[in-house]
Amino acid sequence: MSENTRVADYAIHEQFIQRWSPRAFSNEVISEDTLLSFLEAARWAPSAYNSQPWRFLYARRDTPNWQRFLGLLNEFNRGWAQHASALVIVISKTTFTPPGATEEGPALWHTFDTGSAWGHLGLQASISGWHTHAMAGFDKELARTELKVPEGYEIHTAVAIGKLGDKATLAEFLQARETPSPRKPLSELAAEGDFTL
Amino acid sequence: MSENTRVADYAIHEQFIQRWSPRAFSNEVISEDTLLSFLEAARWAPSAYNSQPWRFLYARRDTPNWQRFLGLLNEFNRGWAQHASALVIVISKTTFTPPGATEEGPALWHTFDTGSAWGHLGLQASISGWHTHAMAGFDKELARTELKVPEGYEIHTAVAIGKLGDKATLAEFLQARETPSPRKPLSELAAEGDFTL
Repeated sequence: MSENTRVADYAIHEQFIQRWSPRAFSNEVISEDTLLSFLEAARWAPSAYNSQPWRFLYARRDTPNWQRFLGLLNEFNRGWAQHASALVIVISKTTFTPPGATEEGPALWHTFDTGSAWGHLGLQASISGWHTHAMAGFDKELARTELKVPEGYEIHTAVAIGKLGDKATLAEFLQARETPSPRKPLSELAAEGDFTL
Repeated sequence: MSENTRVADYAIHEQFIQRWSPRAFSNEVISEDTLLSFLEAARWAPSAYNSQPWRFLYARRDTPNWQRFLGLLNEFNRGWAQHASALVIVISKTTFTPPGATEEGPALWHTFDTGSAWGHLGLQASISGWHTHAMAGFDKELARTELKVPEGYEIHTAVAIGKLGDKATLAEFLQARETPSPRKPLSELAAEGDFTL
């Protein structure tokens, strides 16, 4: 297990610095109930007009969908994510019916709100002793056709979920990166009043 | 205090169903350290290539910036948010320097990632005994000029943060809505394998 050297500059719940995104996974099988508990946490995220734009498609290892989902990843990500326990494709609905309206219009906050659901998902998985790693490197268009994602839905990320494995199983250049990542100082991210960042 | 009748369908940490978005706030003053602890939680969110696109501008009540920030909200939101303790404008950087590159390119995940940071923020505030309410109803263009937000940054939401107040202070039609909102069943949000939602 990698040492977590993160230090919070302000008093926060330890879950926020304990959650991190490894690549060394242990080939553990995950039960559907456990995986769904991570999505359950996502379900309770806030969203504009409570529109709940988030959608999730998933495959667990040792099930018929596993190789199909793995095949959506680029070669680099497939190399390590094949040892994860589940893959989740995070999607959002791009339209919604505004309060008082009778027809759907554009959902201007669907990406932002679905990001907050992903934040919940990652925290619940970490609290439960699992790890998540969201990937940009996968074929979105292939995912759309392979998983039959209709128009009106946007595909955002593919998340590998698993139990932490031995980093010695990773290529050497990845072993060096297998540790909780640092963050910019809050002074570069937040300002009182005008934008001075 | 409103009764929270939410029930999680799968075992999750109670923080996810305890967090909700009221409108009745109590005019409490918030210390800068307390407010920054909520942004600290956001700081540790995951992001593509650890690019950390989130930025936050804030004003606390009883400080010189308070009326300026309140003035960005539409009349409906200003009516209740004037009793909050802080307002936070959530912004993201729309470009970043990809690994190995020497120039900035478009940050394709800045909105999604900043959503995850907002998810962290709302949870830490709730854990600390405060409440948050993100608003779509504010003038983004006015916020850009008033707060001097440069090009290359996108403005997403305005968040009211405060201590829960007496809902009797709200207009009658809002009192009826002053309760933790429900969610769609997970079966409408998540599917194994193909998109069947």
